[in-house]
Amino acid sequence: MAINVTVWNEYQHEKTDKKVQQVYPEGIHEAIREFLDEDGELNIQTATLDEPEHGLTQEVLESTDVLIWWGHMAHDAVEDDIVERIHDQVLRGMGLILLHSSHYSKIFKRLMGTTCSLRWREVGERERLWVVDPNHPITHGIPEYIDLPHEEMYGERFDIPEPEKILFLGWFEGGEVFRSGITYTRGNGKVFYFQPGHETYPQYKNPLIQKVITNAVHWAAPERKYPKYEAFHADNDVEWDDFDYLGDTPFPKFG
Amino acid sequence: MAINVTVWNEYQHEKTDKKVQQVYPEGIHEAIREFLDEDGELNIQTATLDEPEHGLTQEVLESTDVLIWWGHMAHDAVEDDIVERIHDQVLRGMGLILLHSSHYSKIFKRLMGTTCSLRWREVGERERLWVVDPNHPITHGIPEYIDLPHEEMYGERFDIPEPEKILFLGWFEGGEVFRSGITYTRGNGKVFYFQPGHETYPQYKNPLIQKVITNAVHWAAPERKYPKYEAFHADNDVEWDDFDYLGDTPFPKFG
Amino acid sequence: MAINVTVWNEYQHEKTDKKVQQVYPEGIHEAIREFLDEDGELNIQTATLDEPEHGLTQEVLESTDVLIWWGHMAHDAVEDDIVERIHDQVLRGMGLILLHSSHYSKIFKRLMGTTCSLRWREVGERERLWVVDPNHPITHGIPEYIDLPHEEMYGERFDIPEPEKILFLGWFEGGEVFRSGITYTRGNGKVFYFQPGHETYPQYKNPLIQKVITNAVHWAAPERKYPKYEAFHADNDVEWDDFDYLGDTPFPKFG
Amino acid sequence: MAINVTVWNEYQHEKTDKKVQQVYPEGIHEAIREFLDEDGELNIQTATLDEPEHGLTQEVLESTDVLIWWGHMAHDAVEDDIVERIHDQVLRGMGLILLHSSHYSKIFKRLMGTTCSLRWREVGERERLWVVDPNHPITHGIPEYIDLPHEEMYGERFDIPEPEKILFLGWFEGGEVFRSGITYTRGNGKVFYFQPGHETYPQYKNPLIQKVITNAVHWAAPERKYPKYEAFHADNDVEWDDFDYLGDTPFPKFG
Repeated sequence: MAINVTVWNEYQHEKTDKKVQQVYPEGIHEAIREFLDEDGELNIQTATLDEPEHGLTQEVLESTDVLIWWGHMAHDAVEDDIVERIHDQVLRGMGLILLHSSHYSKIFKRLMGTTCSLRWREVGERERLWVVDPNHPITHGIPEYIDLPHEEMYGERFDIPEPEKILFLGWFEGGEVFRSGITYTRGNGKVFYFQPGHETYPQYKNPLIQKVITNAVHWAAPERKYPKYEAFHADNDVEWDDFDYLGDTPFPKFG
Repeated sequence: MAINVTVWNEYQHEKTDKKVQQVYPEGIHEAIREFLDEDGELNIQTATLDEPEHGLTQEVLESTDVLIWWGHMAHDAVEDDIVERIHDQVLRGMGLILLHSSHYSKIFKRLMGTTCSLRWREVGERERLWVVDPNHPITHGIPEYIDLPHEEMYGERFDIPEPEKILFLGWFEGGEVFRSGITYTRGNGKVFYFQPGHETYPQYKNPLIQKVITNAVHWAAPERKYPKYEAFHADNDVEWDDFDYLGDTPFPKFG
Repeated sequence: MAINVTVWNEYQHEKTDKKVQQVYPEGIHEAIREFLDEDGELNIQTATLDEPEHGLTQEVLESTDVLIWWGHMAHDAVEDDIVERIHDQVLRGMGLILLHSSHYSKIFKRLMGTTCSLRWREVGERERLWVVDPNHPITHGIPEYIDLPHEEMYGERFDIPEPEKILFLGWFEGGEVFRSGITYTRGNGKVFYFQPGHETYPQYKNPLIQKVITNAVHWAAPERKYPKYEAFHADNDVEWDDFDYLGDTPFPKFG
Repeated sequence: MAINVTVWNEYQHEKTDKKVQQVYPEGIHEAIREFLDEDGELNIQTATLDEPEHGLTQEVLESTDVLIWWGHMAHDAVEDDIVERIHDQVLRGMGLILLHSSHYSKIFKRLMGTTCSLRWREVGERERLWVVDPNHPITHGIPEYIDLPHEEMYGERFDIPEPEKILFLGWFEGGEVFRSGITYTRGNGKVFYFQPGHETYPQYKNPLIQKVITNAVHWAAPERKYPKYEAFHADNDVEWDDFDYLGDTPFPKFG
């Protein structure tokens, strides 16, 4: 079954910062699209901040099964009503994958209800990502750990609700640890936050990081989207669906 | 150690509905204050919607360890900036206890990130609250279950993030079940949602319900409030606190 | 990818009790095999208590991806070393689905570490199974609830470790509730306990119950089995896998 | 309310290894007793492997509210029936605190149902213990992290069931991370595993480590011990406790 993926990137650093241009000349979204494209089951489109409605019209979102999000310097430039639109879709079942600095995006904070603050340092230190749950669909095919020669440090305490599952724990050379790969369910939607991906390091060209994100797309894809859930008034006449698989009910009735 | 409790009630039904006046002539907040007052460790004040700033000024909240919330028909009348003020306090460590229809309050939805919708029916049916976790501070002294002869039905699916702990499961005569007593942590704050307490039934006069709420106040009280957590920039020169408990360090150093 | 399923049934009631024979003339295992057989991806075999090694030789288990277990009156007759053999396989990744009275099987208690006791009553009362998590692979295609006209009552408190996920909550006519569908991970193995299936009621002929079990087989199937995990001695010379995706590493090194 | 604490130590290394004798001349159990003794609410006794019944007679355990366990080289020498005796007490409500290499004790494996294996290395490297949950009773009074100049490395993957709460994450100089402080509930008993405490390093003389263990004793102490939980047969005549708090029930009855 085909999965419709929309890769959203704020796409600002790549336009102004030479170091980032070197790493991602076409933008982070294109780097992500490129490796996802190798998976024949995925239909991929991209969207960026500067497009009308940030490229995330109601139509685009309706047809999106999984939304991937990368944002950093322009979180505040994302319109509140677009955030609500995404929020509605997640609760209805759209999968959401948040990368790196997207921990501070409006949509992640909206879903978590906390500050999502953390400890950070940008000196290009080494990170080692340990797999804590090796038989989860997202960690399939990943070895005991992933080494990243250079990454921005994100450390505890990460102010988030307790994750449903911790899949990766990050070790940083400078002395910190981090819950680097975590899952949540919100409404009918599956949410995965994955820490690697500072814009000046080529993490999205690392085949293991690519594997994790591809796995996550399959995991987060919903069976279907549900209508928005509203309080449901169950009236007095409870209808008991008293069907009988054998054609009769020869068993004593209680009460 | 004394605990400062603020009991907040929207206090609308009691002013207009005779049936409610019969049950709670002084308002739900006064009924709650009354039984909490029997606990010598608690300093209790009340606040209501119609007071200036809903009775929840910055000063009141600063000195509040645990906030109890009852709201129903006037959720929308609660000002957004007061909700943010409460939210800040919860993340800093203030305990929050949400009763009955407060599942739909702005502050609960803000903390949960979901619709918090549910199934409901108001016919005065019987509820039985089963204790699922008997050795939790909130269920201490509670028998195997609590019988409520009449209660509004709240049923699954309750659209909430997976609770940290399910303490009570509710059984309703008409065929529904509900996660009736659940806990969360958000930031440094402890949150307890407890379903009983429709305004026309005297649940807050039931000594077992009173015991649960009193227990919850003690459980939710923070050791202290923390400053609001902001992203913390850890600089390059990691200071290792290399103290030595024995006066020397005779062990081989790694690396 | 084909999944090898072994359906294990203690197969005692069916040999001696006429009422059970009427419902399951070929045994519960054959009823389960029958509906699983409609799924083209599954290779199914059965095993029963009275076979040598209970039909669960090392060879059989090695080639089993998912083991389904139904036991009731003869839990004690299951040999301890076979239980250890199953336990090893679960930790290595074999999925395990435990049905109804198998909550009291040796293997479930071995994996849980608790008594797994519960409240029960056998009067053929009605059960309603509410879906709490509609977007989980195991609940796909299941409506808001499943009605069972007659079932043995299993009620709280169920003495189990807190489940990873509660998928179904059961409502019973006589006043009880139950965590009727729950998941765990133990080692690399996925575990699903599902309460319906007393031997005198035809639950395994109910298409919705069949759908849940079929879904659970797909969910529990491992990507692969891992070697048994032993404490791993990491020696002093940590080998840093300092590969470089771009052919060079132009970034400042930390420390 | 006084809490009865029993500190159990296998007490083998201290008798044979000079390095350990230097650090703990009276044994690890006496070092733990010493700092716990400063808490006026605690009544402390010790027990060791070489005593009759390992010092854990039925009488001792009956009167123990919280058992602290340190074992390493002699796990197998602990008698199975004593392990079952401890297990029964935990399920009935006795708190259990497992230190360091006790992750491999029979009682911990019995309660977890997994191998409890991990990665390890003994070179005296530095550990930093990060507090992940600052408003938990066990982390009260603990700063952002605890530095241990030298500790045995315990690293992921730690083969345990998903903890109820992760309170500490450990960072090790050599490149590993570890879930170093974790909680569980088993039956009515609270369980805390805390990783620091290799026998050649004086962790139990570190005031912060002492604070964590003292906090954990208070957290793990039960309100009371429950009878051992057995399957409970609820008979047909469900007794409804139809009491009425107001002297009458003027509300319409459902159904």
